Amino acid sequence: MAAFTVHTSAATSLYSPAGTAILLRSRSRAYYPTTTIRVSCSKTVVIGVAADSGCGKSRFMRRLTSVLGGGAEPPRGGNPNSNTLVSDTTTVICLDDYQSLDRAGRKAKGVTALDPRAHDFDLMYDQVRAIKEGRAVEKPVYNHVAGLLDPPELITPPEILVIKGLHPMYDERVRDLLDLSVYLDISNEVKFAWKVQRDMAERGHSLESIRARKPDFDAYIEPQKQYADAVIEVLPTQLIPGPGDDEGKVLRVKLIMKEGVEHFAPVYLFDEGSTVNWIPCGRKLSCSYPGIRFAYGFGTYFGHEVSVVEMDGQFDKLDELIYVETHLSNLSTKFYGEVAQQMLKHADFPGSNNGTGLFQTIVGLKIRDLYEQIVARR
Amino acid sequence: MAAFTVHTSAATSLYSPAGTAILLRSRSRAYYPTTTIRVSCSKTVVIGVAADSGCGKSRFMRRLTSVLGGGAEPPRGGNPNSNTLVSDTTTVICLDDYQSLDRAGRKAKGVTALDPRAHDFDLMYDQVRAIKEGRAVEKPVYNHVAGLLDPPELITPPEILVIKGLHPMYDERVRDLLDLSVYLDISNEVKFAWKVQRDMAERGHSLESIRARKPDFDAYIEPQKQYADAVIEVLPTQLIPGPGDDEGKVLRVKLIMKEGVEHFAPVYLFDEGSTVNWIPCGRKLSCSYPGIRFAYGFGTYFGHEVSVVEMDGQFDKLDELIYVETHLSNLSTKFYGEVAQQMLKHADFPGSNNGTGLFQTIVGLKIRDLYEQIVARR
Repeated sequence: MAAFTVHTSAATSLYSPAGTAILLRSRSRAYYPTTTIRVSCSKTVVIGVAADSGCGKSRFMRRLTSVLGGGAEPPRGGNPNSNTLVSDTTTVICLDDYQSLDRAGRKAKGVTALDPRAHDFDLMYDQVRAIKEGRAVEKPVYNHVAGLLDPPELITPPEILVIKGLHPMYDERVRDLLDLSVYLDISNEVKFAWKVQRDMAERGHSLESIRARKPDFDAYIEPQKQYADAVIEVLPTQLIPGPGDDEGKVLRVKLIMKEGVEHFAPVYLFDEGSTVNWIPCGRKLSCSYPGIRFAYGFGTYFGHEVSVVEMDGQFDKLDELIYVETHLSNLSTKFYGEVAQQMLKHADFPGSNNGTGLFQTIVGLKIRDLYEQIVARR
Repeated sequence: MAAFTVHTSAATSLYSPAGTAILLRSRSRAYYPTTTIRVSCSKTVVIGVAADSGCGKSRFMRRLTSVLGGGAEPPRGGNPNSNTLVSDTTTVICLDDYQSLDRAGRKAKGVTALDPRAHDFDLMYDQVRAIKEGRAVEKPVYNHVAGLLDPPELITPPEILVIKGLHPMYDERVRDLLDLSVYLDISNEVKFAWKVQRDMAERGHSLESIRARKPDFDAYIEPQKQYADAVIEVLPTQLIPGPGDDEGKVLRVKLIMKEGVEHFAPVYLFDEGSTVNWIPCGRKLSCSYPGIRFAYGFGTYFGHEVSVVEMDGQFDKLDELIYVETHLSNLSTKFYGEVAQQMLKHADFPGSNNGTGLFQTIVGLKIRDLYEQIVARR
């Protein structure tokens, strides 16, 4: 395991309440120097997770840090509005913190948070590279509550750094730093059903603003899919005929895994490299309506060879989850039932009974495995 | 293994060239007494195989006796027109031999060979029971070439007796003697494509006579399906779209296996009791058009719980066969690759490259397993 980096530079508070945007861009190199003390020979493994919204404290990040080594919390004694999560092994930083325009600045320029022009990719690259090389950095903090930039916070190089946000694979330089890249792809049908509820309740966004995001999303976020090693695609169920499930509660979720990625062996069902459809519910396993259906196959995704595991439906009982886990291969678990244990641990999270929770947990296990393979090789 | 029964009664030749029908029925008990010497404590295991046509020397019987203990031949020094096959462990008798009406008799009475009135079920029952109990019998011989009854032949109790023909499960008393019953179910589409070629070439039957058989077939043969423990159903392929495969060369074959049959554990694919579709051709296994598709599932068949394994398409290479064998479970093989070995042994038989050969071989293995379980229990 990597020795902890000791940060020695003075924690200079650079808080500026307004007009931060311009300042940030200009001071990106001058004011946030990376520390010059190299602490460990083992480099940080860097994982990129692209997702439309939700930062830092999202369910996926909680599942991930749970698999990677226990509960993750915001940095102790730091900014209560920090978007960062720190666990024993893993630090998750939110790429919103690299916004070069705050809410007012974006409004003034007429750009959304999805627009690359609202982000400082030079600083993002410098700091992610610094951490990967074992140097601590002073990372900006975007305060989602205020819509402003808060004073920066210290990020010391963890064993695993997860950079999560809108653009982890947008900038080629940042992309090249990633040991694995993940894209959370919520289909439009499901996204609208979810986001209308969440954003309206939590952030006061209107349905209109959500819809207004779509052109920029399509232009700047979605193209990152082509670079992802793993994509979790969330679609409406196909198990309910006719109008289906309007509320987006029953989901069909795909885990699309790129072939030939170092230290990342795709999960498969029964027979690697073949095509399988599987309804586990039957004589041994009883399921309530609309049941559970798995599919496994292969194909190409943006020109890359991929394997795909798909789950439609939801788990009603622990039995079902363990049954399914037993029949999936290459899960990178350390003991029988680890996937089920992880999902039970976060049973209160939405998605713990369906493919979103299942595949998020599996991706966490694959990241742990990748990390351990990299460490072992050193 | 059962000790061979010694037959002591005089081999009385009872050949009568014409009008045999009435004679046969009346003499069934008087002239064909079962021997009274009990030879072995171990009873013969009796298997019924219902099939529309082809007797004794059919491919299925060759495959079966091959699995059950080497090559099978007509009885040595016997009637060259014997319909019987004898191997070390197994004797296959053809139920056509229990016809009470010969060809002329059937014509005179206006009944087909499918009609139970053309068969002597009392004699069939007496003799099958006698063999099962360890007694030799003098079985009639129907000469297919002449369409007449030939002198009887001696059948000593083998370890496994297969009774094959049109009506092995028709008579309740005979049915109750069966340790396992198998029905070969060729769909009408496939049957006509095959039979037109075969019967016209080999037996001079006309297409009309084949068609004329259908009502009796539906009335007397097909209802036996409900009693079968295993059904091999041969259907046209679904892999070729549009008009499909008119020549009946590419086949979709189902193996329907009754649940809860003693000593007969159904074969399954990947996960017992679930529903699976599997296209083995993919990254690891390349197949030529139209490929291979397997399905596995469960359901009811004539009110009985059944498991079903289906294969559509055909094997082009040995690799494919071994690959498929590796992924099927409960095959009752004794070593890795035994199914492939058996099918290669008879590679010249039609059906060796598709589900008919595969499932016939598997049924043979299941019969061997059933026999060994019965012997072990004694």
